[in-house]
Amino acid sequence: MDADEREAAKRRAGESAAASVEDGMVVGLGTGSTAAQAIRALGRRVDVGLDIRGIPTSFRARKLAREAGIPLTSLDEATPDVAIDGADQVAGGDLVKGGGAAHAREKVVDAAADRFLVVVDPTKEVETLDCAVPVEVLPDARTTVAAAVRDQGGEPTLRAAQRKDGPVVTDNGNLVLDCDFGTIPNPGRRSADIAAVPGVVEHGLFVGLADEIHVGRRSGAEVRDV
Amino acid sequence: MDADEREAAKRRAGESAAASVEDGMVVGLGTGSTAAQAIRALGRRVDVGLDIRGIPTSFRARKLAREAGIPLTSLDEATPDVAIDGADQVAGGDLVKGGGAAHAREKVVDAAADRFLVVVDPTKEVETLDCAVPVEVLPDARTTVAAAVRDQGGEPTLRAAQRKDGPVVTDNGNLVLDCDFGTIPNPGRRSADIAAVPGVVEHGLFVGLADEIHVGRRSGAEVRDV
Repeated sequence: MDADEREAAKRRAGESAAASVEDGMVVGLGTGSTAAQAIRALGRRVDVGLDIRGIPTSFRARKLAREAGIPLTSLDEATPDVAIDGADQVAGGDLVKGGGAAHAREKVVDAAADRFLVVVDPTKEVETLDCAVPVEVLPDARTTVAAAVRDQGGEPTLRAAQRKDGPVVTDNGNLVLDCDFGTIPNPGRRSADIAAVPGVVEHGLFVGLADEIHVGRRSGAEVRDV
Repeated sequence: MDADEREAAKRRAGESAAASVEDGMVVGLGTGSTAAQAIRALGRRVDVGLDIRGIPTSFRARKLAREAGIPLTSLDEATPDVAIDGADQVAGGDLVKGGGAAHAREKVVDAAADRFLVVVDPTKEVETLDCAVPVEVLPDARTTVAAAVRDQGGEPTLRAAQRKDGPVVTDNGNLVLDCDFGTIPNPGRRSADIAAVPGVVEHGLFVGLADEIHVGRRSGAEVRDV
């Protein structure tokens, strides 16, 4: 799949999920290049009269939603009927997210939604999750969490920033350890083990949260219930 | 137990734990009035030659340690041989902490220590934990975490600040929901359930972390291994 085909697939996935949004809904707006396609597709529907309010999952999603003309609200005022978000890797209904370091707020919004639609291009689908799991940690806990991850069989790497000296700092003011566990045959257990480590704010394993996977193809999209 | 007796008991508990610290150790320094007694007792031992370094669990513990003349280090540079910290409630070896909203960093330091000594006066000991569990949450997640806590049978209250309008903000920039679950017969399960909620940074249940409970009495202290 070349870059153009992949871009087309992302657009199809985003459009497919956006098409299922109905008048009056509150929509969680995900972060990343495929979720951005969904936000743009929702914006086009708002232009022709769709009445929705969005809850962005990040600074970037908020900016895109404003540009697309989607009225915004917050988790204080409304519960999302549906959330649309991307993933770094999908196996069945389980995801790894957090390449953009927005996974804490993404998980808060996606988990709050009545239905969570995942939008991906086909390169994200795998049999078994095996990419590194982004783990957001309190700055003071980076050393002790790294040690705990090693005890659990993972290899942690502090995510370095670009265009800034030192590490990536999240929108919440925390750091990110990318934790390579190799293949993850039991994401539920891995998720609980990581969540139990003191100093972990949120990790990028999304287990049992997704309701539909929208996989974009060159033309159209395939929708899978999970 | 009147106020004077309780104060004496806190001092005895702090002194008992401080007495078990040996030359060359790195010591996690807890937060709260009983941990403060341990810090003062350690300071008196440093005055007469004890060679230790402290890792404070909070802004307040850092200030007290400096005043007591204890040299400081950090989790980046050293692993605590022992941590000494208080608790709001103790049942067997399980604790509720977080009355001072410092429980996230306390848990990071206490869990990193080879041995964790809990210092309390007798009023903190109960058969079954039943005080509200402080849950530190990302500010944006306060509504969704509150809803999840209600689903789990708890009653959450956003902790209001004094000497500041609005809610308490933690040293990490987050908020605190005090979550009343009534009695907590299975702290391990409750702990995992709370930790799994998206947006929870850290909660005040300390399960399986304590090694010794030092209960101060009017004269002396009782030490219980757990």
